[in-house]
Amino acid sequence: MNIALVTRFLGVILLVEAASMTPSLIIALFHHQDGDVPALLMTLGLILAVGLPMFFLSRPKDRNLRARDGFIVVALSWILMSVFGALPFTLSGFLPNYVDALFEAVSGFTTTGATVVTDFSHMPHGIVFWRSFTHWVGGMGVLVLTLALLPKLSDRTSHLVRAESPGPSLSKIVPKMGDSAKILYIMYTVLTVIEFCILMLCGMNPYDAAIHAMGTAGTGGFSNYGDSVAHFQSVPIEITMTVFMILFGINFAIYYFMYNRSWHDIRNNEELRWYLSIVGIVILLLTVLLIPYYGSFTSALRYSAFQTASVISTSGFATCNFDLWPVSARMLLLLVMFIGSCAGSTAGGMKVIRVALMIKEAKREIRRTIQPRKVQMVRFDGKGIDESMLHSIAVFVFAYVALVLAGAVVIALENRYDLITNFTAALTCVSNVGPGFGAVGPAGNFAEYGPLAKLVCSFLMLAGRLELYPLLILFHPVVWKKN
Amino acid sequence: MNIALVTRFLGVILLVEAASMTPSLIIALFHHQDGDVPALLMTLGLILAVGLPMFFLSRPKDRNLRARDGFIVVALSWILMSVFGALPFTLSGFLPNYVDALFEAVSGFTTTGATVVTDFSHMPHGIVFWRSFTHWVGGMGVLVLTLALLPKLSDRTSHLVRAESPGPSLSKIVPKMGDSAKILYIMYTVLTVIEFCILMLCGMNPYDAAIHAMGTAGTGGFSNYGDSVAHFQSVPIEITMTVFMILFGINFAIYYFMYNRSWHDIRNNEELRWYLSIVGIVILLLTVLLIPYYGSFTSALRYSAFQTASVISTSGFATCNFDLWPVSARMLLLLVMFIGSCAGSTAGGMKVIRVALMIKEAKREIRRTIQPRKVQMVRFDGKGIDESMLHSIAVFVFAYVALVLAGAVVIALENRYDLITNFTAALTCVSNVGPGFGAVGPAGNFAEYGPLAKLVCSFLMLAGRLELYPLLILFHPVVWKKN
Repeated sequence: MNIALVTRFLGVILLVEAASMTPSLIIALFHHQDGDVPALLMTLGLILAVGLPMFFLSRPKDRNLRARDGFIVVALSWILMSVFGALPFTLSGFLPNYVDALFEAVSGFTTTGATVVTDFSHMPHGIVFWRSFTHWVGGMGVLVLTLALLPKLSDRTSHLVRAESPGPSLSKIVPKMGDSAKILYIMYTVLTVIEFCILMLCGMNPYDAAIHAMGTAGTGGFSNYGDSVAHFQSVPIEITMTVFMILFGINFAIYYFMYNRSWHDIRNNEELRWYLSIVGIVILLLTVLLIPYYGSFTSALRYSAFQTASVISTSGFATCNFDLWPVSARMLLLLVMFIGSCAGSTAGGMKVIRVALMIKEAKREIRRTIQPRKVQMVRFDGKGIDESMLHSIAVFVFAYVALVLAGAVVIALENRYDLITNFTAALTCVSNVGPGFGAVGPAGNFAEYGPLAKLVCSFLMLAGRLELYPLLILFHPVVWKKN
Repeated sequence: MNIALVTRFLGVILLVEAASMTPSLIIALFHHQDGDVPALLMTLGLILAVGLPMFFLSRPKDRNLRARDGFIVVALSWILMSVFGALPFTLSGFLPNYVDALFEAVSGFTTTGATVVTDFSHMPHGIVFWRSFTHWVGGMGVLVLTLALLPKLSDRTSHLVRAESPGPSLSKIVPKMGDSAKILYIMYTVLTVIEFCILMLCGMNPYDAAIHAMGTAGTGGFSNYGDSVAHFQSVPIEITMTVFMILFGINFAIYYFMYNRSWHDIRNNEELRWYLSIVGIVILLLTVLLIPYYGSFTSALRYSAFQTASVISTSGFATCNFDLWPVSARMLLLLVMFIGSCAGSTAGGMKVIRVALMIKEAKREIRRTIQPRKVQMVRFDGKGIDESMLHSIAVFVFAYVALVLAGAVVIALENRYDLITNFTAALTCVSNVGPGFGAVGPAGNFAEYGPLAKLVCSFLMLAGRLELYPLLILFHPVVWKKN
């Protein structure tokens, strides 16, 4: 490991985190409620006290960032960001227990949206704003943000983006990584602002609109109300958020294609077709299954559309307690929790492209059984896909499912709650959705879990957000060897 | 498809089924209870009326069995066997509904052991014997049995055994397929008889001993008591069955190595080491988790050992209602339900060798992230494993999990029971275990499910037993084309 270079990067990340805390500080100063201004100031001071020396005192001889070191930077950045990002929650007294605060910060940065907050009535505005701002930063990625701000940090930064961006292949939008990062953040900001404005037009106050726009953009799901979006009881708000949750689940390259009027590239994007088909089919099926429950087609459609968009985009907002739905509807949602949205979006889950490729591979295996001698290629976007990439994806899917199951076993060691609560707690954390079923359903939360489960869930959320390997390599001894 | 040859094979299978029904008929005649003799005789008559013309009237010009046709023969044989094997249950009035009877027959042949029987008090002996005999025939495989009896049916029969034998690679014990089949059935019979004798020595009557020995040998799990093996409340019986369930989960090639004193081959068998390690670790962990529940180490060990052996070997016998265990213990059992035992045994599940190889592959992916340029091989039994085989296994594991999830969604469409019942119903069927959790736990059964769920479960059990592809290809249009 190139310790000096890694340290330097981690220092920068902390400085970016400090910068990203300032909007919350402004909100806090504006509302001057008890506790949040000092908490944010103390955190800022601590971050700078650690980050500045890390940045200025490290003297990397070799400024060439290797793949391995890139993964380490990404994993450690996310851990460090969460460790410091949790401080305002504890220092303000909002979440006195630091494990709770860490869980909440990880859930924020990883855009999971699972919460340990039980009482939403006495929340300082600055702290809650920070809680939602972590969604916005974590959604597109803090390293992508860093590269957008400081493109000349190192000679090779594509490893960083590769490790932080969701999906099996790196989709550079333009050849230069720094430019790609900038374009991504510009599009991201524009879309967030558009949603913010529409939510205001729908009757939200600016603060609520900001909270919910950031939660949608990062596909996070934190709300500042205990009953989430059901609080507003507003069809226009629900429609707006449904549409934007689906939009933020789309690969951002598509928006760049739109900007460039490359309609051909959009039409040829097979993952987009799969994604929109899955969203459409699930909404339709859920609507049919929910008509007896809600008594009318329109209500069934309204609730199924919002909840489907929320779960597939791995946001986790809710307009109803879907844990009370008929078991058929719940089982369908459970299935969808594995899948997630498109690669290159802000969403979690296995990603549509991986699931689509695996389905094609399974079909090929069936064809192979029938015609063993015929060479059969798996095609995507009209191109034959490399076998070794398909193989890696298959192993990823296994590791994903294995991590969910292993995580569920460890969470269950606390002997709290039932099987489905423990199982969906692990699943919803790895997939970065937010709510699960049972005690961690939309009406529940993770507060009653013990420290073991909360720490394991935090690990699962980070592993899910970074797509397993960057976090898992930390357990490999080779990583800790010096170059 | 070579229709004439396939028909001829299916005719033979039916004749073998007729032959395998005679022991039950003898038991029925011996006990002469109401209903079972006529039911068995009528079924025998029907099987012969269909099977004899199929065998004698089909005139295959090409006696060369292609891979594709081999898979079709296997899939259709198992369906046909179940369709006819269900008749005695209905005709005797034991299970008046034919869908119930079909479920029970499929559960028997696939050695799942899931049941729709709710009342065990008025069961005709011949029918119950047939119910358990299906375990014994299905365990080692009816096509293997056919080849053992009639080795010269076709010029190429390895496809049949490959499609019916569990595990990723075909382990021929000796070069000739017919001889391998004979040796397998001899070892299988000897082991079954040994267990039968020991169970008698432990105090079981001959009838109960036969039922439970056949259920163990096939790793099936049907008992003739509502509370399964808990009925006997006998430690020696539990120890005997625990040991034999573990033994029948081992690749039968190991027993042949023992017979030949090839100790080197046994020591080198990595799957065996993984399997015994998993069994040992799970028993140990469960014991620790269950000490507070049972209050003593010995009770905890007693119940954890039996239930672990039962679930890992995918038998499904029970000496306690493990659905009442603490959630940590249940979650561990749930995890184990996916894995199953060794390839080449009579057990179900994904098979230890596949899980072991996938774990090694996941480790390799992590190493690759760190050292992208180093060539890294996955080794098993000391040999490097072919990449295309690893790839196929990874796709199989995906298809397996996808089938469980999709099956759970369809079963849940009936809107009966809770999430965990529906999910574990699908899992326990695909893995051929038998009991799941919730309403299909050891104290429950599948009786209250509707016809849709029962038919889907039957499909899942067959798909699990035949390792997915032989059954799934039936849905591919190419299969139904004439050669």
